[in-house]
Amino acid sequence: MDKIKVGIINVTGYAGVELARLLHQHPEVELASVTGRSAAGQSLSEVFPHLADIKLTIEAKPGDVELVFSAMPHKESAKEVIPLLEKGIKVVDISADFRLKDASEYQRWYGFSHPTPQLLTEAVYGLPELHRSQIAAAQLVANPGCYPTGAILALAPAVKAQLIEADIVIDSKSGVSGAGRTLSLPTHFSEANEDVSAYALEGHRHLPEITQELTLLKPELLPAVTFVPHLVPMTRGILTTCYAPLASGKKDVEEIRKLYRDFYKDAPFVRVADSPPHTKQTWGSNLCLVYPTLDQRTGKLVVISAIDNLVKGAAGQAIQNMNLMLGLPETMGLEAPAIYP
Amino acid sequence: MDKIKVGIINVTGYAGVELARLLHQHPEVELASVTGRSAAGQSLSEVFPHLADIKLTIEAKPGDVELVFSAMPHKESAKEVIPLLEKGIKVVDISADFRLKDASEYQRWYGFSHPTPQLLTEAVYGLPELHRSQIAAAQLVANPGCYPTGAILALAPAVKAQLIEADIVIDSKSGVSGAGRTLSLPTHFSEANEDVSAYALEGHRHLPEITQELTLLKPELLPAVTFVPHLVPMTRGILTTCYAPLASGKKDVEEIRKLYRDFYKDAPFVRVADSPPHTKQTWGSNLCLVYPTLDQRTGKLVVISAIDNLVKGAAGQAIQNMNLMLGLPETMGLEAPAIYP
Amino acid sequence: MDKIKVGIINVTGYAGVELARLLHQHPEVELASVTGRSAAGQSLSEVFPHLADIKLTIEAKPGDVELVFSAMPHKESAKEVIPLLEKGIKVVDISADFRLKDASEYQRWYGFSHPTPQLLTEAVYGLPELHRSQIAAAQLVANPGCYPTGAILALAPAVKAQLIEADIVIDSKSGVSGAGRTLSLPTHFSEANEDVSAYALEGHRHLPEITQELTLLKPELLPAVTFVPHLVPMTRGILTTCYAPLASGKKDVEEIRKLYRDFYKDAPFVRVADSPPHTKQTWGSNLCLVYPTLDQRTGKLVVISAIDNLVKGAAGQAIQNMNLMLGLPETMGLEAPAIYP
Amino acid sequence: MDKIKVGIINVTGYAGVELARLLHQHPEVELASVTGRSAAGQSLSEVFPHLADIKLTIEAKPGDVELVFSAMPHKESAKEVIPLLEKGIKVVDISADFRLKDASEYQRWYGFSHPTPQLLTEAVYGLPELHRSQIAAAQLVANPGCYPTGAILALAPAVKAQLIEADIVIDSKSGVSGAGRTLSLPTHFSEANEDVSAYALEGHRHLPEITQELTLLKPELLPAVTFVPHLVPMTRGILTTCYAPLASGKKDVEEIRKLYRDFYKDAPFVRVADSPPHTKQTWGSNLCLVYPTLDQRTGKLVVISAIDNLVKGAAGQAIQNMNLMLGLPETMGLEAPAIYP
Repeated sequence: MDKIKVGIINVTGYAGVELARLLHQHPEVELASVTGRSAAGQSLSEVFPHLADIKLTIEAKPGDVELVFSAMPHKESAKEVIPLLEKGIKVVDISADFRLKDASEYQRWYGFSHPTPQLLTEAVYGLPELHRSQIAAAQLVANPGCYPTGAILALAPAVKAQLIEADIVIDSKSGVSGAGRTLSLPTHFSEANEDVSAYALEGHRHLPEITQELTLLKPELLPAVTFVPHLVPMTRGILTTCYAPLASGKKDVEEIRKLYRDFYKDAPFVRVADSPPHTKQTWGSNLCLVYPTLDQRTGKLVVISAIDNLVKGAAGQAIQNMNLMLGLPETMGLEAPAIYP
Repeated sequence: MDKIKVGIINVTGYAGVELARLLHQHPEVELASVTGRSAAGQSLSEVFPHLADIKLTIEAKPGDVELVFSAMPHKESAKEVIPLLEKGIKVVDISADFRLKDASEYQRWYGFSHPTPQLLTEAVYGLPELHRSQIAAAQLVANPGCYPTGAILALAPAVKAQLIEADIVIDSKSGVSGAGRTLSLPTHFSEANEDVSAYALEGHRHLPEITQELTLLKPELLPAVTFVPHLVPMTRGILTTCYAPLASGKKDVEEIRKLYRDFYKDAPFVRVADSPPHTKQTWGSNLCLVYPTLDQRTGKLVVISAIDNLVKGAAGQAIQNMNLMLGLPETMGLEAPAIYP
Repeated sequence: MDKIKVGIINVTGYAGVELARLLHQHPEVELASVTGRSAAGQSLSEVFPHLADIKLTIEAKPGDVELVFSAMPHKESAKEVIPLLEKGIKVVDISADFRLKDASEYQRWYGFSHPTPQLLTEAVYGLPELHRSQIAAAQLVANPGCYPTGAILALAPAVKAQLIEADIVIDSKSGVSGAGRTLSLPTHFSEANEDVSAYALEGHRHLPEITQELTLLKPELLPAVTFVPHLVPMTRGILTTCYAPLASGKKDVEEIRKLYRDFYKDAPFVRVADSPPHTKQTWGSNLCLVYPTLDQRTGKLVVISAIDNLVKGAAGQAIQNMNLMLGLPETMGLEAPAIYP
Repeated sequence: MDKIKVGIINVTGYAGVELARLLHQHPEVELASVTGRSAAGQSLSEVFPHLADIKLTIEAKPGDVELVFSAMPHKESAKEVIPLLEKGIKVVDISADFRLKDASEYQRWYGFSHPTPQLLTEAVYGLPELHRSQIAAAQLVANPGCYPTGAILALAPAVKAQLIEADIVIDSKSGVSGAGRTLSLPTHFSEANEDVSAYALEGHRHLPEITQELTLLKPELLPAVTFVPHLVPMTRGILTTCYAPLASGKKDVEEIRKLYRDFYKDAPFVRVADSPPHTKQTWGSNLCLVYPTLDQRTGKLVVISAIDNLVKGAAGQAIQNMNLMLGLPETMGLEAPAIYP
């Protein structure tokens, strides 16, 4: 049987090139087309020597494929994707352009007026652990941001079960690749190395995603989220530490872990860990490790999650979504364990 | 005039060797004696080639000095220090052995019964920004832990002014040197590199210090602190992010910054920063950068502090304490700016 | 058809755990048994959470398998391996115990008298690019050291064709995982981070391997090798820069590259690169990138090679050898491209 | 007595900002003026918060000073510096613009025609260990490149004494700050982290400096230098490993070390080390550690040097030159030991 042809728009960023690596190893799918405006005309292996086994030329426009991943920046992604949707092509959009249900949020957080607000209700938020069946039926899936992936998976069971009160703190620590391949002073080696800093204290664009999804899980909770992202000197990985007051009369830590295990019992890529997770335990893999615990002194639920921001936080999750959309096993092509050390 | 002679007990750890580096550059003090049991008999420069200019032999017992820094591990430090105190020698103890006022806390957090509980009331907690005058008059100063230094300095103005409610989250990110020079798997390069993790989730030993000092500042607040330390892949630096609900009817961000500036107006080593601080901005220096801000959406005060864990978090602060105890200018020998990048 | 059962002796080091990761993904082989004395009785996933998918208990002795990888330290490995050989089990020994043909070298370089010198002639040096057919027929394969793998592959075509004179300098830069999982001060994070140093200047144990293999390739050349290894602050990767005077009347750079390409035309894991290779281009993969060039001013051949020291430099090469010994395709289970960035 | 006023042209690069840090601590010199076109009008502490104690506004043109450091890029530096020289201002030029004696080399290596070839003979190459007295008398000093500093200091005693033959290999490993503060893909964190690579294999611009100075030391040797620089994932530091055949009938290692010690007996910033040096042992200091040894098997002299590329390799050496030019003690303001770990 012929493999299913898929394409990548904007293969030259870190999400794009990671998609290429993972798709190359997928048994039922063929990476048939890659685009990237600045590099159009070059072979993929010229730009990325580690992908020398993939014999593709970077094109200006996507070829004839059944499904496309868009790794364009926000605002530009929607423009590329809309004509493809009209042709009936399935799309996993890695940008933020279809993640938020409320079109006015695009003006507020991204500074542009959304071109197709009607598509926002049609698009499915591509977190399979929450929306598996809708993803399977969707033509357009909005792949979650890297921070929201770690944060929502850490909090979803607690929110759903109303284990916690609304007052949530999310403190995330991200490797530098999360900032992409575009050059900037904060991601210049000598600036980022031997340094930790917080950023986006006025409000990070991933906050509305997090709030939207937690609210959907339990609207009456009215979650109030303080989210502070930090940059740490490593290439890959996000560790997210979440804090929320335990709702009164609730659970001991063993009950909480059981509740988490039950919540994720059918989620092949979420593992409720037995010890505090390390980002290194997910390096290169599509796993999310989640570790709920209790601060007995203060009655706070503390949940820690670890992901590889470029895999479960971007390209791996996109392929997990693709698998569901194409009727393939959810884990296909994503079984590789983390690389340690 | 002759310089004042001082000594270091256990110079072979990271706090000890950093003390040696800084004391070597002090204009009024002479490092006259260094001890270190395992390395006794070797020259200091054999063990630490970067200190080749300091011509000292590592001894088994401290020589004739006016003031001693103890960089021994907890429990052992008290044993070394008590006889010196009886001889009238001034002591800055970098271990935890005299930090806590309540002797029972030693059993609970450190697993030993304190040998001289009466000294706990006599000892002064060596955070000059809070206890400057008592330090100046003390014979025994307990140098704060690295995490408490960053956390207390971040929160003190807010607690003192009752800007916040009792429910405090402290999320700290530390470089690996904070774990010392003793070998361990978590501090093995290949394990710690490209990794972030949380640890001590059952309660870190620095928590009672933080709680003690915040409570002293405003006993009626009854601060309830959740503290989670994290290990990040760099050598030096601690970034601490603190979260607490703003007390009702309180202040906008400009008022808060003014309140912080006023609180630290006489503190030469605390700078209220104009932008989110980076640990790199304190590398090698005795500065603590503090940045208070507000999450307008949730009414949370967010305060970030940055220190070099081996300077303001250990050896530099110890010298700041020494300066006060010896009647020298507080900043003497500690003026060097951070090294960047 | 049933999979072929294989085992790992001493799975708890970095070579051992990397073998487990790679074998878990091998389509024709089943990892059936793992040993590790200190961790015996624990489940593999307890010690290595990233391998949670492998359901094995660490045993004291290897079980019933067709082929065993020994990742024991030198001297101890021979002891473990000899009884297995007598039972007819195939062995890939990752230690140095069967790499050298001349038994007296063990006394000189490793300080022990070899227990079975007769096995040294029987054992095959497991560099498939040089000894493919002998490996396929061998019961005992001595997996090369990490440095020799990069150095020999860089130099073999030039030595074989007598492109160069005997006077060879090999300057290698290794990530810290090459020093293993055993704790030591030079591999303590705070010591190794932000540092580069040379070591083993009196002669590194990998030197006799390099000399042995280069001499075998062209005995009359009498290669005189100066080899200096360096430690660089990264987890994985070895970059080796080789220098040798071009033999008189020899080749321009294009001819040299052609000669290299011809030499490696049947080697699936050696790629003659078009630009200076980066270790990152081999991260997690079994590739060796080789880049020969010429210093026109001085008539020196300069050849650079890059490998992942734990894959092509250890576990991956061991599986490549296993594939040949079991009659499987050489690349089976080793096709994954490098992970970038 | 008033301090001597000095200025920095282009303070916004890494050499410039390091000059500012070091000059701020100099007892006899006052940093009176800093320029930087893109940042003109901003305060220095806005651009570099770690220098908050220096109250200076970045200007477009240097103010009234006795000596100027130019940290401009090559070609542009000469333009800035020539009018200052005409006004009688002393200049330490950190760019390459006055390092080479042969004007035609500028066309060949830097691609421009030198505007004032006559100044090339007047300018003194600012390596105080070789040219101390000429520097003291000079108006224009050309501060050496970072690689040449480490390489020439490693080789000078051997070349001068004709210990070695002409055939020299220099293999250098540099931290990323050596590439400056200008953004580029190779210095993007996610590209440079966990990577080692060689570059400039066609010939690095620092080669003619190295050859010029080694030839001056012993013209009849006709040194033939192969120089390959490498990028390693750390911020600061250069380790240089030099290889050369020992001239026949020469010296054992103890004699060689004595010869090195004698050569550098009056050089306060070069230390002949007793063990292989680590770049970390020079972090933040103006020291160069030099370690000569012998490969007994091959008769090769191997010399390793370690420097901080931004101090002895740039700003520190520039101040050492300034001290000599102004008649101040050579070590003034540069006594701080390295910061470890």
